[in-house]
Amino acid sequence: MVTSWETIKAIDDILHPQSIAVVGTSPDPVSPGYQYLRFLVDAGYRGDLYPVNPRGMSILGLPTYPELAEIPGAVDYVICCIRAELVLDLLQQCAQKKVKAVHLLTAKLSETGDEKARRLEKEIAKKAKELGIRLIGPNCMGIYCPGERIPFNHDLCMEPGTVGAIVQSGGLAGEIVRLAALRGVRFSKAVSYGNAADLNETDFLEYFLWDDETKVILLYIEGVRNGEKFFQTLRRATQIKPVIILKGGRSRAGIRSAASHTASVAGSMDAWQVLFRQTKAVQAQNLNELLDLSVAFYFLPAITGKRVGIVGGGGGKSILCSDQFEEAGLEVVPFPEEIVKLLESRKPGITRWLGNPVDASILASINLKSFDMLRYMANSPAFDLLSINTSEDSFYQGDLWIEFMEQEVKGALMVHRERLKPVIAVVGNPEIGHSAVDNWRWQALFRFREQLTNEGIPVFPSPGRAATAVSKLVDYYRYREKAGTSSVEK
Amino acid sequence: MVTSWETIKAIDDILHPQSIAVVGTSPDPVSPGYQYLRFLVDAGYRGDLYPVNPRGMSILGLPTYPELAEIPGAVDYVICCIRAELVLDLLQQCAQKKVKAVHLLTAKLSETGDEKARRLEKEIAKKAKELGIRLIGPNCMGIYCPGERIPFNHDLCMEPGTVGAIVQSGGLAGEIVRLAALRGVRFSKAVSYGNAADLNETDFLEYFLWDDETKVILLYIEGVRNGEKFFQTLRRATQIKPVIILKGGRSRAGIRSAASHTASVAGSMDAWQVLFRQTKAVQAQNLNELLDLSVAFYFLPAITGKRVGIVGGGGGKSILCSDQFEEAGLEVVPFPEEIVKLLESRKPGITRWLGNPVDASILASINLKSFDMLRYMANSPAFDLLSINTSEDSFYQGDLWIEFMEQEVKGALMVHRERLKPVIAVVGNPEIGHSAVDNWRWQALFRFREQLTNEGIPVFPSPGRAATAVSKLVDYYRYREKAGTSSVEK
Repeated sequence: MVTSWETIKAIDDILHPQSIAVVGTSPDPVSPGYQYLRFLVDAGYRGDLYPVNPRGMSILGLPTYPELAEIPGAVDYVICCIRAELVLDLLQQCAQKKVKAVHLLTAKLSETGDEKARRLEKEIAKKAKELGIRLIGPNCMGIYCPGERIPFNHDLCMEPGTVGAIVQSGGLAGEIVRLAALRGVRFSKAVSYGNAADLNETDFLEYFLWDDETKVILLYIEGVRNGEKFFQTLRRATQIKPVIILKGGRSRAGIRSAASHTASVAGSMDAWQVLFRQTKAVQAQNLNELLDLSVAFYFLPAITGKRVGIVGGGGGKSILCSDQFEEAGLEVVPFPEEIVKLLESRKPGITRWLGNPVDASILASINLKSFDMLRYMANSPAFDLLSINTSEDSFYQGDLWIEFMEQEVKGALMVHRERLKPVIAVVGNPEIGHSAVDNWRWQALFRFREQLTNEGIPVFPSPGRAATAVSKLVDYYRYREKAGTSSVEK
Repeated sequence: MVTSWETIKAIDDILHPQSIAVVGTSPDPVSPGYQYLRFLVDAGYRGDLYPVNPRGMSILGLPTYPELAEIPGAVDYVICCIRAELVLDLLQQCAQKKVKAVHLLTAKLSETGDEKARRLEKEIAKKAKELGIRLIGPNCMGIYCPGERIPFNHDLCMEPGTVGAIVQSGGLAGEIVRLAALRGVRFSKAVSYGNAADLNETDFLEYFLWDDETKVILLYIEGVRNGEKFFQTLRRATQIKPVIILKGGRSRAGIRSAASHTASVAGSMDAWQVLFRQTKAVQAQNLNELLDLSVAFYFLPAITGKRVGIVGGGGGKSILCSDQFEEAGLEVVPFPEEIVKLLESRKPGITRWLGNPVDASILASINLKSFDMLRYMANSPAFDLLSINTSEDSFYQGDLWIEFMEQEVKGALMVHRERLKPVIAVVGNPEIGHSAVDNWRWQALFRFREQLTNEGIPVFPSPGRAATAVSKLVDYYRYREKAGTSSVEK
């Protein structure tokens, strides 16, 4: 039942091909073959790249070949962008060329609900197996391996990192990498695997579990091919690496859509809830939560305490932040005695007014900077985690506010660099329209977000989203601690 | 027990003063008095504006007066930015000048937890009452009345609308107006009322209920002065206008913070849950939800049906969108027979694959535009509401993608203009850093968001947030329909 060593090796080969042929390229920019070739050219794929096109013209400055057989060198990996009806024949040619694996961008197969198309997909899988060729797809975007400069969409970040992603949906695969990259997350590899006629979610999960470059595993999954095998692998996986799962197809309408998207049988949500409970996979409720969790697990160490110290918002913000952190299961604890004493020595009675979360406007009135408070809290054993709750709105405008905020951000960075406590930040993300983008306030927010992210502070757009992600992270590492498997490096 | 007609009249006077004196102005840009005066000057307040400063220099181009008595004309309204200890004396001067109301920006009173300060606040309230002067505050930002060009923070939108806001927190008051304005929401008036020594949440609620310019009422509230009176007024209010409430101070830590922010007794959350159930006030769980609900109630008509048609995302997006809409209590219904027939006549078998939500990538394959589908759905009685689920990521890049998206947006606008069905849009709002802001993709999103908003389509940043807001709106109007009070104009 377990994914074989051969399969793990096959996936590793797929992710590191020495040469790629794109079959079904065309000079038409609207054609998938053109686009996929362009992704590879723009990203600067390291290996040999061969466009295949029957009419033999050059595309994007590369000479094309009328068929696989005419390519001078070896071909490890084929990206297939031709119609489904032509795939069986292509597989035959691949076998002759000793191609190891084929990625079928080709779609309109079982996901269409058409019986003929479904049978064709089965035949393709059978034939590939007979020929010893591994398949990714059909109906998917294939692989993203930044180390090899292989993208599966345009303009993707090509800096490698430690998150491995398994994404059934091709559109979401690109979007997850792109949006997570904006937030500083970097990937080891990602796979979009569509209808999973051959390699499936469990095979990729097993691969990422084995892969040393991957420390955190993300999944977006619509349906599972072999539930028992997936369950067993997942249970093993979470004891070694955090596995974050977004399950698509939870509602009646979602289940209908999943069938027509990747021919998935979505399964009952009750069964999935049992799976989450029993495997300790971390459940994301939606795309934003998947991104938040990837940010949290990518940047934060294995925190197992729930006591949060919060600095920086005004009064109303501080209250809402407390509410959301505590509702998510974290504890916004009162100041410990040593901080109470320290503050009272500056101004007797002040701690009747000033507490955790630290209201930045009160702080100003006793001539303390948020940085001072943050450091007191970083030095205290009373807190497991600190959160910068930036005050995005203020009495002051323009330079005055920017200067104040810059101090806040600088302070957070200084405490972060001392590595006394994990630090997270909440920087709001308003729905800015085109005519407001250049406004000094929003420009400053864009800057602060980037400064914090670049130095490795995880940034969340709201206290609620920060709290939910961190709380799930703490729960996961508590489980690992209890299970005695928490010594794995992060 | 009911707020008197005199109080409603007093609030109306406060919001429409013929003249304002700002007491405690200073040329120092860091001083609150300077800032508040600047807000008024920059916004172009319509009435007479008198800065009061004992040293008599001119500030921001306006002559100042050493004291109230020396102001030549009448003074309706005083904004008090001086220290708490000086307020009793100022009230005496206000009485001589026949000032109707005083806004106490002045803070460090009961919210500090200091007994002496608490007593002083009581004395101030008592004295004001004896002198017949109404108070807003202390410890608050006062009033925002765009029609009179009175702001309570800098750079606020001065176009009037129909939302009335009652916000206990001064910082949040400005932020709510600013962030809601980005999303197209316009306010009739807003009030930040802080410690509520005189006028309180119930008085303002009664005012907005009476006020013809206000169609939707928003509250951010930390604690209520008189629970029974508030409850009775709220119960009456929701039968006439939607009332959206964000309650701050729900958790242990939040309750502690509320006490030190506006001296509020937060009350038990159980009691608040009963209040929400019994009054049909619409509960917002956090600041973003408060904004989402204000967008929904501001733009949408009184929808009482739950059947949603969704067009525009790719496969994965469509599934997640279905899940989140249905989990929020809406129904992503299958295509009705007439649409099935229509599509099958174009391509037999297609509806085994193409459903609601409409996967934009399938649509392309049968040469239909999302606009066509949207219009079919707008014409069908099977849907109560349509949602544009924009495909923010795509196989195509640059101009190709922008052209596709522009078609999608244009189509949505055309269907919206025909007013056959309410239309909402989901436009993602990624966490963009400074170096990515100018990227063609995010610039296009900023543009699309603004185009849709400007034409009155409510835009939400995620399917989940859209669904939650719309579902609560439908629940509210169903209640109104059942109660037989739904005929009030929107």
